[in-house]
Amino acid sequence: MQILKSFNDVSLVVDNLSGTLGLVPTMGCLHAGHLSLIKQARMQNDFVAVSIFVNPIQFESEKDAHEYPRNFESDIAMLESENVDFVFIPDIGEVFPYGYQTYVTVTEISRVLEGSRRPGHMRGVATIVTKLLIVFRPDSIYCGQKDGQQSILIKRLVKDLRIPVDVQVCPTVRDSDGLALSSRNIYLSAKERKSSLLLYSSLCSVQDAFRDGIKNSHILRNIIANVLTNDSLLETVYISIADFDTLEELDQVCNKALCSIAVKVGSVVLIDNIILEEVLNE
Amino acid sequence: MQILKSFNDVSLVVDNLSGTLGLVPTMGCLHAGHLSLIKQARMQNDFVAVSIFVNPIQFESEKDAHEYPRNFESDIAMLESENVDFVFIPDIGEVFPYGYQTYVTVTEISRVLEGSRRPGHMRGVATIVTKLLIVFRPDSIYCGQKDGQQSILIKRLVKDLRIPVDVQVCPTVRDSDGLALSSRNIYLSAKERKSSLLLYSSLCSVQDAFRDGIKNSHILRNIIANVLTNDSLLETVYISIADFDTLEELDQVCNKALCSIAVKVGSVVLIDNIILEEVLNE
Repeated sequence: MQILKSFNDVSLVVDNLSGTLGLVPTMGCLHAGHLSLIKQARMQNDFVAVSIFVNPIQFESEKDAHEYPRNFESDIAMLESENVDFVFIPDIGEVFPYGYQTYVTVTEISRVLEGSRRPGHMRGVATIVTKLLIVFRPDSIYCGQKDGQQSILIKRLVKDLRIPVDVQVCPTVRDSDGLALSSRNIYLSAKERKSSLLLYSSLCSVQDAFRDGIKNSHILRNIIANVLTNDSLLETVYISIADFDTLEELDQVCNKALCSIAVKVGSVVLIDNIILEEVLNE
Repeated sequence: MQILKSFNDVSLVVDNLSGTLGLVPTMGCLHAGHLSLIKQARMQNDFVAVSIFVNPIQFESEKDAHEYPRNFESDIAMLESENVDFVFIPDIGEVFPYGYQTYVTVTEISRVLEGSRRPGHMRGVATIVTKLLIVFRPDSIYCGQKDGQQSILIKRLVKDLRIPVDVQVCPTVRDSDGLALSSRNIYLSAKERKSSLLLYSSLCSVQDAFRDGIKNSHILRNIIANVLTNDSLLETVYISIADFDTLEELDQVCNKALCSIAVKVGSVVLIDNIILEEVLNE
């Protein structure tokens, strides 16, 4: 496994590559969710590159970026054992040198959900992903359904900027109790973690209702709200049922919708989502 | 000469190209200024591509974009005679299809000069240039010093996004009377055109003063202001002496500065600039 620290290192490697390349962008602190992306990339490509970069411009403050959990040694060990070919670990000055001022914005998709809750977050994501796609020129990029809005944003920017890459969105990986894996789960107390299980169960209730024929978003949102308000440790940030491509809120689910929630639990905001889609033969 | 109308056409051509490619992005209505870029590209590359696209998102209104002069037939004839290999003439729906929402912003550089006078203009330029660079993957892109701020913006975005392309800035081409060539010059009456000559002569006065050792920007700006206020047909929009890389206004010219002006003449705003640079041996 080759460790790359600069964009020049990456270009040298990429210029001499013959075969398909899969890229998995991460902020490190890897868990089984990331590994599922890497395994998928490994299956589908001749070469696999993983980037580890805690992207400061997608955080609201330097403090938030600084406090994001890091675990480089364990990350490297995990990547070694997954037969990753290249790990890109640039420092901040390599990615955003003095005088840096170019940003990529995906306007409408960035205004809602995580974008409305975290100003600048989506612009930060779009910018770093564009930079990685330009330097790596991968055949496929892998993202997790867990960050549903990010996946939709990346699909949109790739389409709009005509970047020749396939965007692969892999299913959310959950603990056996249903909690979606997240680097932030380590901040939950045992009690908070127990309350957090209501996130997924509220989404499952909506899935059931949808399969039973309820298409009215107002009713579907209320199903979640009712589950979440039952627990005093949970503070709902948003409940959204939105078009799967544009993230416009829907009155009625017609084709494919993203049902996503953000909930404050103690000091942490957890997000989760499910896809609501009419299936003809189940 | 091959005429390409879609991004897919371009990709097909570029994927099968062996040799260097020079790209000259234009909005058509070609004049000797554009031809100087094309000739330079022709000299330095195996293949030359020219794009003709009146980019709606760099205009303030649809009306302005619609009214921008067009002359496709004469453009094509000129490009044929310059041995251009590829002309890319997409329609608006090809470049900005329904649902398009991804934009590239170069923040500080876009806030001043033309950026402050024309909201959204620089974002429009940065976005179209990024899209063209991604699809054409040229070795070099050619821009004119006449649009000094655009050249500085393109150099910055290429550096920030790590797009592997050489940005070649070619000198401003002037009519024999000194007026910088511009597609907008056709809107000048004979009287206005005569007044417009003061733009370049004011810049020449500054160049002379600078060579005589005057480095104070306040004094240098006043030299221009005094020349321009003498003519009642001219209305000064801005006079800038700014750092050549960042476009920050300078108190004192130390290394290399861009001295740029915008002047309203009748219904048209004309822009022009010169580079102020310490030269050791002249």
